[in-house]
Amino acid sequence: MTRTGRRSDGSDTRADLLTAAQREFYDRGYAGASIRGIAAGAGVDPALVYHYFADKQALFVAALRFPANPAEKLPQVLAGDPKELGIRLVGTVVSVWDSTESSPILTLLRSAVTNPAFADMLREFLIDAVLRPVLDSLVVQQRELRASLVASQLVGLAMARYVLRLPPLTTLGIDDVVQVIAPTVQRYLTGPLGAG
Amino acid sequence: MTRTGRRSDGSDTRADLLTAAQREFYDRGYAGASIRGIAAGAGVDPALVYHYFADKQALFVAALRFPANPAEKLPQVLAGDPKELGIRLVGTVVSVWDSTESSPILTLLRSAVTNPAFADMLREFLIDAVLRPVLDSLVVQQRELRASLVASQLVGLAMARYVLRLPPLTTLGIDDVVQVIAPTVQRYLTGPLGAG
Repeated sequence: MTRTGRRSDGSDTRADLLTAAQREFYDRGYAGASIRGIAAGAGVDPALVYHYFADKQALFVAALRFPANPAEKLPQVLAGDPKELGIRLVGTVVSVWDSTESSPILTLLRSAVTNPAFADMLREFLIDAVLRPVLDSLVVQQRELRASLVASQLVGLAMARYVLRLPPLTTLGIDDVVQVIAPTVQRYLTGPLGAG
Repeated sequence: MTRTGRRSDGSDTRADLLTAAQREFYDRGYAGASIRGIAAGAGVDPALVYHYFADKQALFVAALRFPANPAEKLPQVLAGDPKELGIRLVGTVVSVWDSTESSPILTLLRSAVTNPAFADMLREFLIDAVLRPVLDSLVVQQRELRASLVASQLVGLAMARYVLRLPPLTTLGIDDVVQVIAPTVQRYLTGPLGAG
Protein backbone atom coordinates (compact mmCIF):
# COMPACT_ATOMS: atom_id res chain seq x y z
CA MET A 1 0.00 0.00 0.00
CA THR A 2 2.68 2.53 0.99
CA ARG A 3 5.08 3.30 -1.80
CA THR A 4 8.31 3.83 0.11
CA GLY A 5 11.32 4.15 -2.17
CA ARG A 6 9.19 5.39 -5.06
CA ARG A 7 11.17 8.59 -5.22
CA SER A 8 14.89 9.03 -5.57
CA ASP A 9 14.61 12.77 -4.87
CA GLY A 10 13.72 13.59 -1.28
CA SER A 11 12.29 16.99 -2.16
CA ASP A 12 9.43 15.31 -4.03
CA THR A 13 8.47 13.41 -0.91
CA ARG A 14 8.38 16.63 1.04
CA ALA A 15 6.23 18.32 -1.60
CA ASP A 16 3.92 15.29 -1.73
CA LEU A 17 3.57 15.39 2.05
CA LEU A 18 2.66 19.08 1.94
CA THR A 19 0.02 18.44 -0.73
CA ALA A 20 -1.38 15.48 1.20
CA ALA A 21 -1.36 17.56 4.38
CA GLN A 22 -3.31 20.42 2.78
CA ARG A 23 -5.95 17.93 1.60
CA GLU A 24 -6.14 16.12 4.96
CA PHE A 25 -6.37 19.38 6.96
CA TYR A 26 -9.12 20.70 4.67
CA ASP A 27 -11.04 17.41 4.75
CA ARG A 28 -10.74 16.63 8.48
CA GLY A 29 -9.88 19.95 10.07
CA TYR A 30 -6.79 20.58 12.16
CA ALA A 31 -7.93 18.53 15.14
CA GLY A 32 -9.15 15.58 13.03
CA ALA A 33 -6.16 15.33 10.70
CA SER A 34 -3.52 12.71 11.53
CA ILE A 35 0.10 12.09 10.58
CA ARG A 36 -0.97 8.55 9.62
CA GLY A 37 -3.66 9.88 7.27
CA ILE A 38 -1.30 12.41 5.70
CA ALA A 39 1.37 9.76 5.19
CA ALA A 40 -1.19 7.47 3.55
CA GLY A 41 -2.28 10.35 1.30
CA ALA A 42 1.32 10.84 0.18
CA GLY A 43 1.92 7.09 -0.12
CA VAL A 44 4.75 6.98 2.41
CA ASP A 45 5.38 5.36 5.76
CA PRO A 46 4.19 7.50 8.71
CA ALA A 47 7.65 7.33 10.25
CA LEU A 48 9.07 9.08 7.19
CA VAL A 49 6.91 12.15 7.92
CA TYR A 50 9.04 12.86 10.99
CA HIS A 51 12.12 12.95 8.81
CA TYR A 52 10.72 16.15 7.28
CA PHE A 53 8.46 17.64 9.96
CA ALA A 54 8.69 17.69 13.75
CA ASP A 55 4.96 17.15 14.32
CA LYS A 56 1.47 17.83 13.02
CA GLN A 57 1.74 21.48 13.94
CA ALA A 58 4.97 21.96 11.97
CA LEU A 59 3.40 20.20 9.01
CA PHE A 60 0.37 22.47 9.20
CA VAL A 61 2.53 25.58 9.41
CA ALA A 62 4.52 24.48 6.35
CA ALA A 63 1.48 23.31 4.36
CA LEU A 64 -0.31 26.62 4.91
CA ARG A 65 2.85 28.69 4.46
CA PHE A 66 2.53 30.40 7.82
CA PRO A 67 5.17 33.10 8.29
CA ALA A 68 6.28 31.44 11.55
CA ASN A 69 5.60 28.39 13.69
CA PRO A 70 3.90 29.46 16.93
CA ALA A 71 5.77 26.64 18.70
CA GLU A 72 9.03 28.47 18.03
CA LYS A 73 7.73 31.85 19.20
CA LEU A 74 5.72 30.83 22.26
CA PRO A 75 8.60 30.12 24.67
CA GLN A 76 9.79 33.74 24.54
CA VAL A 77 6.19 34.98 24.84
CA LEU A 78 5.40 32.80 27.86
CA ALA A 79 8.68 33.47 29.69
CA GLY A 80 8.54 36.39 32.11
CA ASP A 81 6.02 38.34 34.16
CA PRO A 82 2.43 37.27 33.39
CA LYS A 83 1.44 40.92 33.90
CA GLU A 84 3.41 41.74 30.73
CA LEU A 85 2.21 38.75 28.72
CA GLY A 86 0.00 41.08 26.65
CA ILE A 87 3.01 43.18 25.67
CA ARG A 88 5.06 40.16 24.64
CA LEU A 89 2.17 38.51 22.78
CA VAL A 90 1.19 41.60 20.76
CA GLY A 91 4.84 42.48 20.05
CA THR A 92 5.65 38.99 18.79
CA VAL A 93 2.51 38.62 16.68
CA VAL A 94 2.88 42.00 14.97
CA SER A 95 6.61 41.38 14.39
CA VAL A 96 5.78 38.15 12.57
CA TRP A 97 3.01 39.79 10.55
CA ASP A 98 5.24 42.74 9.59
CA SER A 99 8.27 40.57 8.79
CA THR A 100 7.53 39.84 5.14
CA GLU A 101 6.46 41.97 2.22
CA SER A 102 4.18 39.25 0.88
CA SER A 103 1.71 39.58 3.78
CA PRO A 104 0.91 35.91 4.40
CA ILE A 105 -1.55 37.13 7.02
CA LEU A 106 -3.61 38.59 4.17
CA THR A 107 -3.71 35.20 2.46
CA LEU A 108 -4.88 33.56 5.69
CA LEU A 109 -7.59 36.15 6.29
CA ARG A 110 -8.74 35.85 2.68
CA SER A 111 -8.98 32.08 2.90
CA ALA A 112 -10.78 32.19 6.24
CA VAL A 113 -13.36 34.72 5.07
CA THR A 114 -14.10 33.04 1.74
CA ASN A 115 -13.96 29.39 2.82
CA PRO A 116 -15.84 28.19 5.93
CA ALA A 117 -13.90 24.91 6.01
CA PHE A 118 -10.66 26.86 6.10
CA ALA A 119 -12.06 29.09 8.85
CA ASP A 120 -12.93 25.99 10.91
CA MET A 121 -9.44 24.61 10.39
CA LEU A 122 -7.79 27.91 11.28
CA ARG A 123 -9.92 28.22 14.42
CA GLU A 124 -8.87 24.73 15.60
CA PHE A 125 -5.23 25.52 14.92
CA LEU A 126 -5.38 28.91 16.65
CA ILE A 127 -6.94 27.36 19.74
CA ASP A 128 -4.57 24.39 19.84
CA ALA A 129 -1.30 26.02 18.88
CA VAL A 130 -1.62 29.54 20.29
CA LEU A 131 -4.58 30.33 22.51
CA ARG A 132 -4.70 27.24 24.74
CA PRO A 133 -0.92 27.26 25.51
CA VAL A 134 -1.09 30.97 26.33
CA LEU A 135 -4.11 30.62 28.62
CA ASP A 136 -2.75 27.44 30.21
CA SER A 137 0.27 29.46 31.36
CA LEU A 138 -2.04 31.56 33.56
CA VAL A 139 -4.05 30.93 36.72
CA VAL A 140 -7.38 32.37 35.57
CA GLN A 141 -11.05 31.48 35.19
CA GLN A 142 -12.99 31.59 31.91
CA ARG A 143 -10.06 30.53 29.74
CA GLU A 144 -12.14 29.86 26.65
CA LEU A 145 -13.82 33.27 26.78
CA ARG A 146 -10.50 35.01 27.42
CA ALA A 147 -8.92 33.16 24.49
CA SER A 148 -11.69 34.16 22.10
CA LEU A 149 -11.46 37.79 23.23
CA VAL A 150 -7.68 37.86 22.68
CA ALA A 151 -8.21 36.40 19.23
CA SER A 152 -10.89 38.98 18.42
CA GLN A 153 -8.53 41.88 19.17
CA LEU A 154 -5.53 40.36 17.36
CA VAL A 155 -7.49 39.39 14.26
CA GLY A 156 -9.15 42.81 14.30
CA LEU A 157 -5.73 44.44 14.50
CA ALA A 158 -4.68 42.45 11.42
CA MET A 159 -7.84 43.54 9.60
CA ALA A 160 -7.34 47.21 10.53
CA ARG A 161 -3.60 47.24 9.79
CA TYR A 162 -3.39 45.14 6.61
CA VAL A 163 -6.88 44.96 5.07
CA LEU A 164 -8.79 48.16 5.87
CA ARG A 165 -5.49 50.04 6.28
CA LEU A 166 -7.00 52.43 8.81
CA PRO A 167 -4.71 55.34 9.64
CA PRO A 168 -2.81 55.65 11.84
CA LEU A 169 -2.97 52.00 12.97
CA THR A 170 -1.80 50.85 9.55
CA THR A 171 1.46 52.84 9.70
CA LEU A 172 2.32 52.80 13.44
CA GLY A 173 5.62 51.22 14.42
CA ILE A 174 5.45 47.94 16.32
CA ASP A 175 6.25 49.59 19.68
CA ASP A 176 3.39 52.05 19.27
CA VAL A 177 0.98 49.26 18.29
CA VAL A 178 2.04 47.34 21.38
CA GLN A 179 1.51 50.38 23.57
CA VAL A 180 -2.13 50.85 22.56
CA ILE A 181 -3.22 47.24 21.97
CA ALA A 182 -1.35 45.34 24.71
CA PRO A 183 -3.46 46.74 27.60
CA THR A 184 -6.58 45.32 25.92
CA VAL A 185 -4.99 41.92 25.39
CA GLN A 186 -3.68 41.95 28.97
CA ARG A 187 -7.17 42.64 30.34
CA TYR A 188 -8.57 39.79 28.26
CA LEU A 189 -5.81 37.50 29.57
CA THR A 190 -5.72 38.33 33.28
CA GLY A 191 -7.96 41.30 34.04
CA PRO A 192 -11.55 41.51 35.17
CA LEU A 193 -13.94 40.67 32.34
CA GLY A 194 -17.20 42.54 32.08
CA ALA A 195 -17.78 46.06 33.22
CA GLY A 196 -15.94 45.51 36.52
CA MET B 1 -27.19 63.90 -22.32
CA THR B 2 -29.41 62.92 -19.39
CA ARG B 3 -32.25 60.67 -20.41
CA THR B 4 -35.02 61.83 -18.11
CA GLY B 5 -38.39 60.32 -18.90
CA ARG B 6 -36.82 57.28 -20.53
CA ARG B 7 -38.51 54.96 -18.05
CA SER B 8 -42.18 54.72 -17.24
CA ASP B 9 -41.47 52.44 -14.26
CA GLY B 10 -39.80 54.18 -11.33
CA SER B 11 -38.32 50.96 -9.94
CA ASP B 12 -36.06 50.70 -12.99
CA THR B 13 -34.62 54.11 -12.27
CA ARG B 14 -33.91 53.10 -8.71
CA ALA B 15 -32.19 49.90 -9.86
CA ASP B 16 -30.20 51.83 -12.46
CA LEU B 17 -29.11 54.29 -9.78
CA LEU B 18 -27.95 51.47 -7.52
CA THR B 19 -25.94 49.91 -10.35
CA ALA B 20 -24.43 53.26 -11.28
CA ALA B 21 -23.68 53.92 -7.60
CA GLN B 22 -21.85 50.61 -7.18
CA ARG B 23 -19.70 51.41 -10.20
CA GLU B 24 -18.99 54.99 -9.10
CA PHE B 25 -18.12 53.95 -5.53
CA TYR B 26 -15.78 51.22 -6.78
CA ASP B 27 -14.14 53.53 -9.32
CA ARG B 28 -13.79 56.66 -7.16
CA GLY B 29 -14.04 55.39 -3.60
CA TYR B 30 -16.61 56.58 -1.10
CA ALA B 31 -15.07 60.03 -0.62
CA GLY B 32 -14.51 60.64 -4.34
CA ALA B 33 -17.91 59.49 -5.59
CA SER B 34 -20.54 62.16 -6.27
CA ILE B 35 -24.31 62.23 -6.66
CA ARG B 36 -23.73 64.05 -9.95
CA GLY B 37 -21.45 61.29 -11.24
CA ILE B 38 -23.86 58.56 -10.16
CA ALA B 39 -26.78 60.36 -11.81
CA ALA B 40 -24.77 60.71 -15.02
CA GLY B 41 -23.92 57.00 -14.87
CA ALA B 42 -27.61 56.15 -14.63
CA GLY B 43 -28.53 58.72 -17.27
CA VAL B 44 -30.83 60.76 -15.02
CA ASP B 45 -30.91 64.27 -13.64
CA PRO B 46 -29.02 64.63 -10.33
CA ALA B 47 -32.13 66.07 -8.67
CA LEU B 48 -33.96 62.80 -9.36
CA VAL B 49 -31.48 60.91 -7.17
CA TYR B 50 -32.91 62.66 -4.11
CA HIS B 51 -36.35 61.35 -4.99
CA TYR B 52 -35.04 57.88 -4.18
CA PHE B 53 -32.18 58.42 -1.70
CA ALA B 54 -31.67 60.99 1.06
CA ASP B 55 -27.95 61.47 0.37
CA LYS B 56 -24.73 59.82 -0.76
CA GLN B 57 -24.53 57.80 2.43
CA ALA B 58 -28.04 56.38 1.99
CA LEU B 59 -27.22 55.52 -1.62
CA PHE B 60 -24.03 53.75 -0.51
CA VAL B 61 -25.87 51.80 2.18
CA ALA B 62 -28.50 50.68 -0.35
CA ALA B 63 -26.01 49.93 -3.14
CA LEU B 64 -23.89 47.75 -0.84
CA ARG B 65 -26.93 46.19 0.86
CA PHE B 66 -25.82 47.21 4.34
CA PRO B 67 -28.10 45.77 7.02
CA ALA B 68 -28.67 49.27 8.40
CA ASN B 69 -27.83 52.90 7.71
CA PRO B 70 -25.46 54.21 10.40
CA ALA B 71 -27.17 57.62 10.09
CA GLU B 72 -30.36 56.07 11.49
CA LYS B 73 -28.59 54.31 14.36
CA LEU B 74 -26.10 56.96 15.44
CA PRO B 75 -28.51 59.35 17.22
CA GLN B 76 -29.43 56.71 19.82
CA VAL B 77 -25.75 55.73 20.18
CA LEU B 78 -24.56 59.31 20.69
CA ALA B 79 -27.38 60.32 23.07
CA GLY B 80 -26.53 59.83 26.74
CA ASP B 81 -23.53 59.64 29.02
CA PRO B 82 -20.23 59.61 27.07
CA LYS B 83 -18.91 57.20 29.73
CA GLU B 84 -21.37 54.60 28.41
CA LEU B 85 -20.82 55.31 24.72
CA GLY B 86 -18.87 52.04 24.42
CA ILE B 87 -21.85 50.08 25.75
CA ARG B 88 -24.29 51.74 23.35
CA LEU B 89 -21.95 51.45 20.35
CA VAL B 90 -21.14 47.75 20.84
CA GLY B 91 -24.77 46.90 21.63
CA THR B 92 -26.08 48.66 18.54
CA VAL B 93 -23.44 47.25 16.19
CA VAL B 94 -23.88 43.65 17.34
CA SER B 95 -27.69 44.00 17.24
CA VAL B 96 -27.47 45.04 13.59
CA TRP B 97 -25.03 42.25 12.75
CA ASP B 98 -27.16 39.63 14.50
CA SER B 99 -30.45 40.91 13.06
CA THR B 100 -30.49 38.91 9.82
CA GLU B 101 -29.86 35.28 8.99
CA SER B 102 -28.08 36.18 5.77
CA SER B 103 -25.09 37.73 7.55
CA PRO B 104 -24.46 40.76 5.34
CA ILE B 105 -21.46 41.46 7.56
CA LEU B 106 -19.87 38.28 6.13
CA THR B 107 -20.38 39.58 2.60
CA LEU B 108 -18.74 42.88 3.53
CA LEU B 109 -15.76 41.19 5.19
CA ARG B 110 -15.36 38.86 2.22
CA SER B 111 -15.37 41.74 -0.25
CA ALA B 112 -12.95 43.80 1.84
CA VAL B 113 -10.45 40.96 2.23
CA THR B 114 -10.51 39.86 -1.40
CA ASN B 115 -10.71 43.28 -3.09
CA PRO B 116 -8.37 46.11 -2.07
CA ALA B 117 -10.50 48.72 -3.88
CA PHE B 118 -13.51 47.60 -1.85
CA ALA B 119 -11.43 47.74 1.34
CA ASP B 120 -10.43 51.33 0.52
CA MET B 121 -14.05 52.26 -0.11
CA LEU B 122 -15.24 50.59 3.08
CA ARG B 123 -12.52 52.34 5.09
CA GLU B 124 -13.58 55.75 3.75
CA PHE B 125 -17.22 55.02 4.52
CA LEU B 126 -16.48 53.72 8.03
CA ILE B 127 -14.47 56.81 8.85
CA ASP B 128 -16.99 59.24 7.36
CA ALA B 129 -20.26 57.64 8.43
CA VAL B 130 -19.41 56.01 11.74
CA LEU B 131 -16.01 56.72 13.29
CA ARG B 132 -15.71 60.47 12.74
CA PRO B 133 -19.23 61.27 14.02
CA VAL B 134 -18.65 59.10 17.09
CA LEU B 135 -15.28 60.69 17.91
CA ASP B 136 -16.54 64.20 17.12
CA SER B 137 -19.12 63.74 19.89
CA LEU B 138 -16.27 63.53 22.44
CA VAL B 139 -13.74 65.98 23.85
CA VAL B 140 -10.60 63.90 23.38
CA GLN B 141 -7.18 64.01 21.78
CA GLN B 142 -5.87 61.53 19.18
CA ARG B 143 -9.25 61.08 17.49
CA GLU B 144 -7.87 59.28 14.44
CA LEU B 145 -5.92 56.77 16.52
CA ARG B 146 -8.92 56.19 18.80
CA ALA B 147 -11.18 55.67 15.78
CA SER B 148 -8.85 53.09 14.22
CA LEU B 149 -8.58 51.23 17.55
CA VAL B 150 -12.36 51.10 17.94
CA ALA B 151 -12.64 49.77 14.39
CA SER B 152 -9.96 47.14 15.07
CA GLN B 153 -11.92 45.71 18.02
CA LEU B 154 -15.31 45.83 16.30
CA VAL B 155 -14.06 44.26 13.05
CA GLY B 156 -12.18 41.66 15.10
CA LEU B 157 -15.35 40.89 17.01
CA ALA B 158 -17.13 40.32 13.68
CA MET B 159 -14.30 38.04 12.54
CA ALA B 160 -14.33 36.04 15.79
CA ARG B 161 -18.13 35.81 16.00
CA TYR B 162 -19.11 35.19 12.37
CA VAL B 163 -16.01 33.99 10.48
CA LEU B 164 -13.74 32.06 12.85
CA ARG B 165 -16.75 31.24 15.05
CA LEU B 166 -14.61 31.10 18.17
CA PRO B 167 -16.45 29.72 21.18
CA PRO B 168 -17.87 31.14 23.32
CA LEU B 169 -17.76 34.55 21.61
CA THR B 170 -19.67 33.16 18.64
CA THR B 171 -22.68 32.06 20.73
CA LEU B 172 -22.79 34.69 23.51
CA GLY B 173 -25.96 36.78 23.77
CA ILE B 174 -25.67 40.43 22.84
CA ASP B 175 -25.67 41.58 26.49
CA ASP B 176 -22.76 39.30 27.32
CA VAL B 177 -20.81 40.47 24.26
CA VAL B 178 -21.39 44.06 25.34
CA GLN B 179 -20.23 43.29 28.86
CA VAL B 180 -16.82 41.98 27.76
CA ILE B 181 -16.14 44.13 24.68
CA ALA B 182 -17.59 47.52 25.70
CA PRO B 183 -14.86 48.31 28.28
CA THR B 184 -12.25 47.95 25.52
CA VAL B 185 -14.17 50.19 23.14
CA GLN B 186 -14.76 52.71 25.95
CA ARG B 187 -11.02 52.86 26.71
CA TYR B 188 -10.27 53.41 23.03
CA LEU B 189 -12.90 56.19 22.93
CA THR B 190 -12.21 58.11 26.13
CA GLY B 191 -9.64 56.30 28.26
CA PRO B 192 -5.88 56.63 28.51
CA LEU B 193 -4.17 55.14 25.48
CA GLY B 194 -0.89 53.35 25.95
CA ALA B 195 0.17 51.50 29.04
CA GLY B 196 -1.04 54.27 31.37
